[in-house]
Amino acid sequence: MPFIRESWYPASWSSSLGAEPVARTFLGEEVVLYRDSQGTAVALSNICPHRFAALAKGKLHGDAIACPYHGLRFGPDGRCVHNPHGPATGAIRVRSYSLVERHGMVWIWMGQAENADPAKIPVLSAREDAQFDWVEGYLHVEGNYQLVIDNLLDLTHVEFLHPFLADPSDTFPTEVTCHEEGEQVISQYNRPQCKRTPLVAGLWNDAPEVISLLSVMRWQAPANLVQRNCFDVARHADMANAHVQVPFCHLLTPETETTTHYFWAGGRNQLQGVPAVSEGFRLGVEGAFKNEDEPMIADVQGRMKGRELFDMKPLLLPIDKSAVLARRRVSALLKAELA
Amino acid sequence: MPFIRESWYPASWSSSLGAEPVARTFLGEEVVLYRDSQGTAVALSNICPHRFAALAKGKLHGDAIACPYHGLRFGPDGRCVHNPHGPATGAIRVRSYSLVERHGMVWIWMGQAENADPAKIPVLSAREDAQFDWVEGYLHVEGNYQLVIDNLLDLTHVEFLHPFLADPSDTFPTEVTCHEEGEQVISQYNRPQCKRTPLVAGLWNDAPEVISLLSVMRWQAPANLVQRNCFDVARHADMANAHVQVPFCHLLTPETETTTHYFWAGGRNQLQGVPAVSEGFRLGVEGAFKNEDEPMIADVQGRMKGRELFDMKPLLLPIDKSAVLARRRVSALLKAELA
Amino acid sequence: MPFIRESWYPASWSSSLGAEPVARTFLGEEVVLYRDSQGTAVALSNICPHRFAALAKGKLHGDAIACPYHGLRFGPDGRCVHNPHGPATGAIRVRSYSLVERHGMVWIWMGQAENADPAKIPVLSAREDAQFDWVEGYLHVEGNYQLVIDNLLDLTHVEFLHPFLADPSDTFPTEVTCHEEGEQVISQYNRPQCKRTPLVAGLWNDAPEVISLLSVMRWQAPANLVQRNCFDVARHADMANAHVQVPFCHLLTPETETTTHYFWAGGRNQLQGVPAVSEGFRLGVEGAFKNEDEPMIADVQGRMKGRELFDMKPLLLPIDKSAVLARRRVSALLKAELA
Repeated sequence: MPFIRESWYPASWSSSLGAEPVARTFLGEEVVLYRDSQGTAVALSNICPHRFAALAKGKLHGDAIACPYHGLRFGPDGRCVHNPHGPATGAIRVRSYSLVERHGMVWIWMGQAENADPAKIPVLSAREDAQFDWVEGYLHVEGNYQLVIDNLLDLTHVEFLHPFLADPSDTFPTEVTCHEEGEQVISQYNRPQCKRTPLVAGLWNDAPEVISLLSVMRWQAPANLVQRNCFDVARHADMANAHVQVPFCHLLTPETETTTHYFWAGGRNQLQGVPAVSEGFRLGVEGAFKNEDEPMIADVQGRMKGRELFDMKPLLLPIDKSAVLARRRVSALLKAELA
Repeated sequence: MPFIRESWYPASWSSSLGAEPVARTFLGEEVVLYRDSQGTAVALSNICPHRFAALAKGKLHGDAIACPYHGLRFGPDGRCVHNPHGPATGAIRVRSYSLVERHGMVWIWMGQAENADPAKIPVLSAREDAQFDWVEGYLHVEGNYQLVIDNLLDLTHVEFLHPFLADPSDTFPTEVTCHEEGEQVISQYNRPQCKRTPLVAGLWNDAPEVISLLSVMRWQAPANLVQRNCFDVARHADMANAHVQVPFCHLLTPETETTTHYFWAGGRNQLQGVPAVSEGFRLGVEGAFKNEDEPMIADVQGRMKGRELFDMKPLLLPIDKSAVLARRRVSALLKAELA
Repeated sequence: MPFIRESWYPASWSSSLGAEPVARTFLGEEVVLYRDSQGTAVALSNICPHRFAALAKGKLHGDAIACPYHGLRFGPDGRCVHNPHGPATGAIRVRSYSLVERHGMVWIWMGQAENADPAKIPVLSAREDAQFDWVEGYLHVEGNYQLVIDNLLDLTHVEFLHPFLADPSDTFPTEVTCHEEGEQVISQYNRPQCKRTPLVAGLWNDAPEVISLLSVMRWQAPANLVQRNCFDVARHADMANAHVQVPFCHLLTPETETTTHYFWAGGRNQLQGVPAVSEGFRLGVEGAFKNEDEPMIADVQGRMKGRELFDMKPLLLPIDKSAVLARRRVSALLKAELA
């Protein structure tokens, strides 16, 4: 299946990108990322047009990157600024991608250059909310990005796959609902009573053994998910203003048909600024994603052997509704884009 | 080439299968094997119909196995017995395979369920003969099962490939014959005189330096071979009642087109019950199969690059007769099965 | 793209080949190389015609090599000289390849046997010149042989890729020229002034900091390159008789479409016979080829994803002229050979 191209995609956490060139493949295209001397993020095609060497293996000369093979240098706009073997004509160039830094993320525009409107970047308002202290992470997933979306839009898997995030012995009921709002598909996971979990215990001193949890996951195309997790005492009425708020961003970029860049950030309005709490939070979340979700997704991807999910006729359960809605929207957007 | 499906295949040595679920692929199909609370062996499709997760990575709940991703549970008959997200309807199910335990082996029926007649399980009478003490082994072979059959039906390779099983300096003549009996192809390897080998020396105290050997290999479709090895003093007349009897079972199941499950067992009527003898016997045989046969078969498989053996026009020698007869029978059975 | 077959190809340095059989693939064909009891080099198809086992895993019996699986033995002419299972008829044979040892190299003829004329072996006169002391090496390259030729015919890459061979801070100008002479494409790399490099410093005691360099690379089809490197004081007029002469041979054989055998030898007319100098020279050159050229070529090969170079529409620079001429000659020779 082709990818939605006319979109901003997460390319790198701002905090991870420096002057050192980094090679990264987005939507099957090889890109080199670096910061110029002013600190401005740059994204160029990673492939030198001369002999197809990887620019990311070269060195920066001022704001230009030099091909490591025969020394052609390309500036941030993709034009050759130095040709050791002749004139640096305008014909010698690589694609330069539009980048915008917002919400701590470097966003790359993979579509037609003239459509790169920063207003289309997803709004991650929690990332700008001063009450939250954030940790960030990155995971390389050996699976198609839609399998990751499926995973995130159906949070019922948490109680089976993630003991850090849900107590496996917990038998309190869960209410799962799903609806659409404008361009978003929203999956809601409501537990008026549930057992305290290691994640909650680490963020909420003196949390009771039974608490309430509301988790709201909002997906928007192509692959950005914003999650609100609210914890309070059991059967708490006003979950929107719950005592413990743990927002998440799950921002995905397809690398290839079968691999995905997964950028995540988790915030908290409790115990902010305590390094040990941040580290425990980060390690717990990373462990769940890396040791539990990723192997599961990679295993399913391998079993698909190049087939599309729906061609395999999966058994559809009520919990799949939001994932199916999101997949339908992706298909419709792709159809429109290819029209 | 497709596989013969209407057949019992070896799935696991009975002694190796416990309550812990095991994933194993037979004829290209992923299966999970486990024992229920009564100790009865169960075989189900390993692929959850919901999101295609591997059931073998899940846990048992009573006699049912739970999908590790979203918690659907399937009983030994393949029906969903618990759906955490709605009713456990009869429509939710995985294939359940017929299993029979006999001769210390768990046999799985890979064909149409209604044809699973236990009378069709190969008779391994030596396995029930109290005079024999047995060791068992398993080898994963990186080659098509027919290459393993070829190997076993032409024992002349032993003197070139296996110094534990035949002395390379031995120049006594070998008589190889081949015939068919009902559904069996029988290859006979007769050496009225031959040098004592490490295998024989380990099983026969005071064996003379020159002995006699008769080895009879009986193949029946799809891939089961029963071997009688008889050793006695040189030029012994009545080999059927030879002093030293070393029966073998070689039981094969195709895993994929290019890989094979090889279950073997070796018995002896000498020095029974002596652990050091058992261990030396097991290690010697395993070493020959694993370090000598398997690399040879894997090397040939790699060289075939997806071609069928006969399409490569092998030079046929008299020693290939039994292997060719077996391959012809496999082809005929396949043709009949696909008709 | 197919390979030029009617040609001598380098198979092994003479000094590397002994009685021990070696398996090596040339132009996609598996060959076994060994020396017979007289020390004469032998090349046979490595594939036993019986069961396709690798002869190179067998042992020599006199001048014949025995198949490790069922013991057929083949003599240097490829005919079966011993069949343990029946008569050794003339019909049982493997291909025997013509070999000639010249200039310290074992050359193999991969074309029609009747065309194997030793006069067609490339003349490596420097290898016979007593003033030179040689070191030899071998590199397995994960790239098509034409990418290696491209690399060698455009020496401007040296200043970007190889700090041992060119000082990266050197800004003296380089003159690159290219011409054809008979069957050769000649690329000339002329630096009347350039900085002394580690390579030169190791071969020329008291070399000045600025020297002159002339490097002449001569390619002839399919993939043999002879290089003269001359060093002297800066702006030296008579470079043909320069003080320091460092000839190289770069002899390539395609292994597969995407891998290459790269045999190289480097000579020097300075500090001959000093083991530490030889070893420093060998290590420096090997390091440049193995750690700098090979990864670059392998990276480009991976990026080609099965496409031909010109189908990828590379940007052509003046420095590519000799490589383009060589590629055109290869195409013309292939076209003639397939006509």
